[in-house]
Amino acid sequence: MEETSGAVAIVSGGMDTVTLAHQLDAQGYGLHLSVDYGQRHRKELEFAKRTVGRVGARHDVRGLAGLLHGAALTDATVQVPDGHYAEASMRSTVVPNRNAILLSVAFGVAVAEGAELVTIGVHAGDHPIYPDCRPDFIAAFDAMQRLATDGYSVAGLRLDAPFVKLGKHDIVRIGHERGLPWEDTWRCYKCGDAHCGTCGTCVERREAFELAEVPDPTVYQESAE
Amino acid sequence: MEETSGAVAIVSGGMDTVTLAHQLDAQGYGLHLSVDYGQRHRKELEFAKRTVGRVGARHDVRGLAGLLHGAALTDATVQVPDGHYAEASMRSTVVPNRNAILLSVAFGVAVAEGAELVTIGVHAGDHPIYPDCRPDFIAAFDAMQRLATDGYSVAGLRLDAPFVKLGKHDIVRIGHERGLPWEDTWRCYKCGDAHCGTCGTCVERREAFELAEVPDPTVYQESAE
Repeated sequence: MEETSGAVAIVSGGMDTVTLAHQLDAQGYGLHLSVDYGQRHRKELEFAKRTVGRVGARHDVRGLAGLLHGAALTDATVQVPDGHYAEASMRSTVVPNRNAILLSVAFGVAVAEGAELVTIGVHAGDHPIYPDCRPDFIAAFDAMQRLATDGYSVAGLRLDAPFVKLGKHDIVRIGHERGLPWEDTWRCYKCGDAHCGTCGTCVERREAFELAEVPDPTVYQESAE
Repeated sequence: MEETSGAVAIVSGGMDTVTLAHQLDAQGYGLHLSVDYGQRHRKELEFAKRTVGRVGARHDVRGLAGLLHGAALTDATVQVPDGHYAEASMRSTVVPNRNAILLSVAFGVAVAEGAELVTIGVHAGDHPIYPDCRPDFIAAFDAMQRLATDGYSVAGLRLDAPFVKLGKHDIVRIGHERGLPWEDTWRCYKCGDAHCGTCGTCVERREAFELAEVPDPTVYQESAE
């Protein structure tokens, strides 16, 4: 991790954020972010650009795709590591802040749809490497969302992570009891014709079937042994 | 707000979320969401589609633009209301969960860039209508993010909302002292050639200049009086 003294400011192009951009500039900070989320008043993006140009800072205007970079899963210049899912080498597969982004989008949809529940399939095997899969993150996210959508969501809209304390082999058992067609699931990070069998998520997948004592129908390209 | 018993599940197409989708289906829930965030293993989106088709649920696969709907600011079928910014009629301008989405994206960028600060320009005038502009939301979001990026961000990465307890007229005073060119800011929700002068954000803008006793250089299309 490169230690810089950067700041990421959300700049819409309105009075408040333009003032904020100038204030940050005076403090020596320099990265400003505008998000194109399909707003009708997209004209503001032009004004954001003018402001940032004026203070001489960097400006990113982006939609969601392309915002998550620097990780092996989204950046083709970073190699997908082989090995066990819980190993330190797997750190390169962490997409910065992915679950917070996905969940906040899901809560936006839940409010618009009048839904009462948002769910995510994180499990205990994710905890060593992925901080945004741990129970304390889930609880903090739920608490934040109750404040964020207060008065706009269905009363009691909540976040549930039903597998958060289970191992992946427990999930295999649950799915097996439901008769799930595992061949219709995909997770290999390398994304060839078949599952590679050696990347972290393939190793984890094979291990889960073994521990659950459930036959693994996956066709692997090569053996991890 | 339509009261339904919907659930929004994040479904990637892997074993965990496919099991989750089947479990939700058994419980009578039915909206599944997959997000295209530029992942290299986009093949998983096809598998997510297969799963959701199998359980007979609704499936949305989307990038960020278009995800935020049902609000006057993103949906051309909803009329932008006139009136005072703090009135109940302004509720239709609330984009569901916008600040949580923008901030989570900003924290993702901050981690990737090694930044130490994320900032947002919310102020006290936003509080009556927008729950995601209030101090308790800002504090809860900051607490959530410390957990979400633990071990991946610069130590001490934090969220700052320097205007959260100020009125918009205070921001005008701050900007005025810095000599900001206010004509280079834009916020009118109607987005004509000039600021309309009558939508909530234009009314708020005019009022802020008056309260701050700072000349307002904005050209308004029509008078709100």
